[in-house]
Amino acid sequence: MPGEFELIRRYFTRPTHQAVLGPGDDCALLQPTPGMQLAITTDMLVEGTHFLPGSDPAQLGWKSLAVNLSDLAAMGAQPRWILLAGSLPEAQEAWIAAFARGLFDCATRYQVDLVGGDTTRGPLNLCLTAIGEVPPGAALRRDRAVSGDDLWISGLPGLAALALAERQGRTRLPKAIAERCAEALHRPLPRVELGLELRRQGLANAAIDVSDGLLADLGHIVERSALAAEVFVAQLPPLPGGADPVLARRCQLAGGDDYELLFSAPPDRREKIIELAAQLKLPLWRCGRLVGSETRLTLFDENGEPLTINEKGFDHFA
Amino acid sequence: MPGEFELIRRYFTRPTHQAVLGPGDDCALLQPTPGMQLAITTDMLVEGTHFLPGSDPAQLGWKSLAVNLSDLAAMGAQPRWILLAGSLPEAQEAWIAAFARGLFDCATRYQVDLVGGDTTRGPLNLCLTAIGEVPPGAALRRDRAVSGDDLWISGLPGLAALALAERQGRTRLPKAIAERCAEALHRPLPRVELGLELRRQGLANAAIDVSDGLLADLGHIVERSALAAEVFVAQLPPLPGGADPVLARRCQLAGGDDYELLFSAPPDRREKIIELAAQLKLPLWRCGRLVGSETRLTLFDENGEPLTINEKGFDHFA
Repeated sequence: MPGEFELIRRYFTRPTHQAVLGPGDDCALLQPTPGMQLAITTDMLVEGTHFLPGSDPAQLGWKSLAVNLSDLAAMGAQPRWILLAGSLPEAQEAWIAAFARGLFDCATRYQVDLVGGDTTRGPLNLCLTAIGEVPPGAALRRDRAVSGDDLWISGLPGLAALALAERQGRTRLPKAIAERCAEALHRPLPRVELGLELRRQGLANAAIDVSDGLLADLGHIVERSALAAEVFVAQLPPLPGGADPVLARRCQLAGGDDYELLFSAPPDRREKIIELAAQLKLPLWRCGRLVGSETRLTLFDENGEPLTINEKGFDHFA
Repeated sequence: MPGEFELIRRYFTRPTHQAVLGPGDDCALLQPTPGMQLAITTDMLVEGTHFLPGSDPAQLGWKSLAVNLSDLAAMGAQPRWILLAGSLPEAQEAWIAAFARGLFDCATRYQVDLVGGDTTRGPLNLCLTAIGEVPPGAALRRDRAVSGDDLWISGLPGLAALALAERQGRTRLPKAIAERCAEALHRPLPRVELGLELRRQGLANAAIDVSDGLLADLGHIVERSALAAEVFVAQLPPLPGGADPVLARRCQLAGGDDYELLFSAPPDRREKIIELAAQLKLPLWRCGRLVGSETRLTLFDENGEPLTINEKGFDHFA
């Protein structure tokens, strides 16, 4: 079995295109684009908490990066560099090779350089840090929503939670749906292009990814922007056919582990946003609005009646 | 017990002095100093691998940051921002409060801002990412040593390993020495000022921190700079009085978990380096030299006889 340094050399050292100095020194060295701000985020994925023991290592490699890129996407930042710290119970070379393959698949797809990291022994834990760039003042922040904004959600949130429900034996799904849900759970596509275009075209005032669940994350916008939100069930994305509709709705509203973007935008941007959806081949659903100044979140059913919200999304330690 | 977001708000959210946007959004936003390069590093500390179960949380808070700042120091970078990702088996509020206290003690001492992070459930694991700034071309890299350079080491490497040996019952130390060793193990002082001055005054060609052990880390300079190194036992820092000299020497040469700087410098900088030691009140020991172009490391005993090296320092998975 090769040692730590040899493993890093063999599996995690690839030519870097955007770094002054990549892996192999005390630090990586990066030259930011003049005038740009940095958007930076870190996420830790723990076996038994974020993924099941025995999970496919290539899927894990992809996902551990994708969830971080999703945070950059939610700020409208251009992803540039990543670092990986990992703790492994034992060094199984085949596992590491597959993990690296999945990680670099995602890194290549989104054109980021792995510039550094750390490997150690311990319970399986993967911690990624991702850095992107955004022009000063242009980032899509949670606290910048404006009263009167529409609320939009991308894609089909809830599929990852449905896949987990099936895996845990809580529901059964038709095969085609099950595969689509499994893809959302294991190989999420961070909405980097969407975030970039919303920012470049000045379409959104605020954005967040719905990794904690749609309502929970909308709650963050509501709280940080000090506004009231109204969400209309009738305007939410369609539920997948063949799934239990009550469970599917719950997953859509409170599932977590989704990497769609929820954003707020002025009503006069509707046409541009619909054009953008067509351009990106990604459905964008106008599902609500922000009103008033009282921090509050109301869900309206198909008949326009307000619903009680008791699905609070995902909060560790709650 | 408060939830995840409340814990972050209560213990890890302090005013940031150097961030455009601190904790609380999908990403932190940072404005780099115009023209500067970024030095970035990440280190993962795992219970049972890097520290013993039941370790003092305030010490852990200090150390988890200090080991990252040491990497910035080894590049001659000015520390600026940090992110913290942590996995905890359960949310014990007192533990978290003490950990945060230790972390912010260190952050305040070295003037860095905690700008973001992640908290989750799982086996105890602390992953810090630290970012510093350094002028282009000025970083102290491992691969920039020059034949003819002197080798220098700061402080008293080996004390942390001695403390660990005592804790594991492998040796006994006089009380005063034991306390000093425990301090080195639990509350290491990253040599940030030393790294900055070596870089600013143009005194060093290459540097590394000796976190893997003096000889192992010297090996990295030797390998990356493609040079031969000679180290003279007679010129190494004095061993602590009252400790078993064989064990103390082994700890000094191969102990690991030390955060002193090993650097190479042209002989005509000797006087300036001695002045710097006085200025920083930190002993700097000229303990060897770099010669020739054959990648090799030779240790000479007190009589000038070459010694066999079989202490390879710390290599996970080896």
